[in-house]
Amino acid sequence: MSDLRIGLAGLGTVGATVAARLLVGAVHGATLVCVSARDPRRDRGVNLSGVSFFTDPMQLVASDNVDVVVELIGGADGQALDLVMAALKAGKSVVTANKAMLAAHADSLSALSVTKNIALAFEAAIAGGIPVVKTLREGLAGNDVRNITGILNGTCNYILSRMERDGLDFEAALHEAQEKGFAEADPTLDISGVDTGQKLALLSALAFQRPPDMARLPVTGIERITAQDIFFAGQFGYVIRLIGWAQLASDGVCQRVAPVLVPVGSMLAQTHDELNAVMLTGEPVGKIFLQGSGAGGGATASAVLADIADLSLGFGRPLFAKNTRQMRTPVSLTMPDCAHYLRLALADRPGSMARATQILAENGVSIEEVVQRSSNEGDSFLPVVFITHKVDESSLNGALEALRQQKDVCEDVLSLSIFTA
Amino acid sequence: MSDLRIGLAGLGTVGATVAARLLVGAVHGATLVCVSARDPRRDRGVNLSGVSFFTDPMQLVASDNVDVVVELIGGADGQALDLVMAALKAGKSVVTANKAMLAAHADSLSALSVTKNIALAFEAAIAGGIPVVKTLREGLAGNDVRNITGILNGTCNYILSRMERDGLDFEAALHEAQEKGFAEADPTLDISGVDTGQKLALLSALAFQRPPDMARLPVTGIERITAQDIFFAGQFGYVIRLIGWAQLASDGVCQRVAPVLVPVGSMLAQTHDELNAVMLTGEPVGKIFLQGSGAGGGATASAVLADIADLSLGFGRPLFAKNTRQMRTPVSLTMPDCAHYLRLALADRPGSMARATQILAENGVSIEEVVQRSSNEGDSFLPVVFITHKVDESSLNGALEALRQQKDVCEDVLSLSIFTA
Repeated sequence: MSDLRIGLAGLGTVGATVAARLLVGAVHGATLVCVSARDPRRDRGVNLSGVSFFTDPMQLVASDNVDVVVELIGGADGQALDLVMAALKAGKSVVTANKAMLAAHADSLSALSVTKNIALAFEAAIAGGIPVVKTLREGLAGNDVRNITGILNGTCNYILSRMERDGLDFEAALHEAQEKGFAEADPTLDISGVDTGQKLALLSALAFQRPPDMARLPVTGIERITAQDIFFAGQFGYVIRLIGWAQLASDGVCQRVAPVLVPVGSMLAQTHDELNAVMLTGEPVGKIFLQGSGAGGGATASAVLADIADLSLGFGRPLFAKNTRQMRTPVSLTMPDCAHYLRLALADRPGSMARATQILAENGVSIEEVVQRSSNEGDSFLPVVFITHKVDESSLNGALEALRQQKDVCEDVLSLSIFTA
Repeated sequence: MSDLRIGLAGLGTVGATVAARLLVGAVHGATLVCVSARDPRRDRGVNLSGVSFFTDPMQLVASDNVDVVVELIGGADGQALDLVMAALKAGKSVVTANKAMLAAHADSLSALSVTKNIALAFEAAIAGGIPVVKTLREGLAGNDVRNITGILNGTCNYILSRMERDGLDFEAALHEAQEKGFAEADPTLDISGVDTGQKLALLSALAFQRPPDMARLPVTGIERITAQDIFFAGQFGYVIRLIGWAQLASDGVCQRVAPVLVPVGSMLAQTHDELNAVMLTGEPVGKIFLQGSGAGGGATASAVLADIADLSLGFGRPLFAKNTRQMRTPVSLTMPDCAHYLRLALADRPGSMARATQILAENGVSIEEVVQRSSNEGDSFLPVVFITHKVDESSLNGALEALRQQKDVCEDVLSLSIFTA
């Protein structure tokens, strides 16, 4: 069998590592034949002298020399999407790390890839070097997957870990993440939780046949988490992690992205810094936990190389098992009951605590623990944290609404689920 | 494409679960057509009325109806080996969970499977439901794997966890494991470390092209670990785990199976009860950690089903990439330096501690910490534990030899590596 000929678009950290590994023959049966990037003169630490260089990625599709197009340009639209659509239309297999594109254009991409049965491999789009796509659709192929929980964004996990370890506030931790190269200059997609949501939507499509639809996937970022929240969570034996979470319920798939409290001894809590982790429960396998680097060129390059290796053996798969337009699993409207962390600031005056606890009681939210910090002289409000018993979402929302209208409550209430699975 | 027709030999817990899942269509494109087991009348909780039943597994090979033979009989030789050899000779793909057979007969099995390019899938042979074979040879395909560390035996891990949690001694924990069905009536293969060694040998063949050769894989079991050792380890911030460990060195592959001390906060220490775990380091991926159930029918059945699912898509692979007779990686003769835990019993008489520490010093073993427990009245010896600094293996062996010849040392010295990777 002659070697698979690879055309690689995008020579950032990931692309340069993929190119270097292919050039040393790390993937048996695959040869890098051409690359595309904006600037042919830039030194990327890899000798590309034996490889054709294009400044227009579309040349990779046009070239008769290329069997597989590797898209590492990034961005939900524009050049990346044009390239991938053109490659699929030309019948060329595609490998991509582009979760934003896949989540936004799942309909058109699955229509092309699934209907025409052309491989569109995306291990690198989710959780860096952790083979989660492979585990989910191959390793757990004979299972009914019940739920997926993931720490899927290295930037957010780095920020939360730094806040936890050294009491940094959010801005300082974000700044440090940017300095160390773990966060983009514009970190919005990461810290807003959207990046996690895109990855979760793809996992949910694989596991539950739920078509990616960011408009119906509730996403909360980590912007409102303060050093104080991390301190309070610690007092109760928890740490805070941004998780993406999908669970099969009787009426569909319940999906969320939000910062939550996890027990300090849990595997999710043991996932520090830029690590990613995925926990899957299936029948009959039980629980599987996977952890690895979720940021950095090496981990993502490893996933790209794995996809190329599969293709080189003829083991390619389309984007999903079904065209997303044929996926019928609805979004579940019922969020399972769970305990919550509520942080609010109460006016430092008689009766404010009584009124707050009464509002909780009236709305059916029962309190397991309370911590109130003493005020410094001159403070006109006191930070208070309630840990609730398990509560249904509508009762909780009623209580939050009533608290927000209370003039004793000086800041908006922060509500975080407590995740104990 | 017509369905792959499955013949399943062995209807224990794993086999019955595999059969039940296949019968509900859990693996798209695979149909269970016949089974074999000794007793056709036994109730296994699965309705096999639509499936042919043989008492002789060889009928699965003889049947024109069977494309894939699933071997869940067990045992390194005998019926299991005969069946698998016959199936491969007949050009039928095989799925097996039988690490003992694969490790003992890697030469003949790889000669048939690799040379004739017939699939011999064995995800279920290692670490239950954790897709470690898939991760190693597919997920990390573009990597240079540096090392593999695994908790690969659920029985031993259960015993050590029980000793750790409740101070049970070895015999009591073993007895409990047997009562709960986590340990065989004859647990020798498990507690001796041989089962872990067989699995490690298979991983090492995948990762390092080191042919399985149990005679050259040093294996120590957990029989000598006492409640006292677990207590002492805890004093120093460690727990004890039975690990299998393979690392690429300049002169070959260094492989060991032994109980070791791991830091209490590490992921290996967080692997409790019947869980299994595998830690892999590769370039460029970095470190990957996988954890899941390593015992019980469901987890192993999941791995068997995954192999069947791959075959149903035409994605089968032979036993290894190479015939084992063509694998050339030697066993490394150099064990990397590491710190050790030494537990001995010293005669309760003047000068015994001085003599012991002098022996260590004379052999170049330097001590980081010592704990000596006070003797109960009437005890004629005192338990003493030394934590050494990093030391090379030959210095350590010299010291152990000299200590064993000392008449102040009343019991054999237990030496455990401290594993901090």
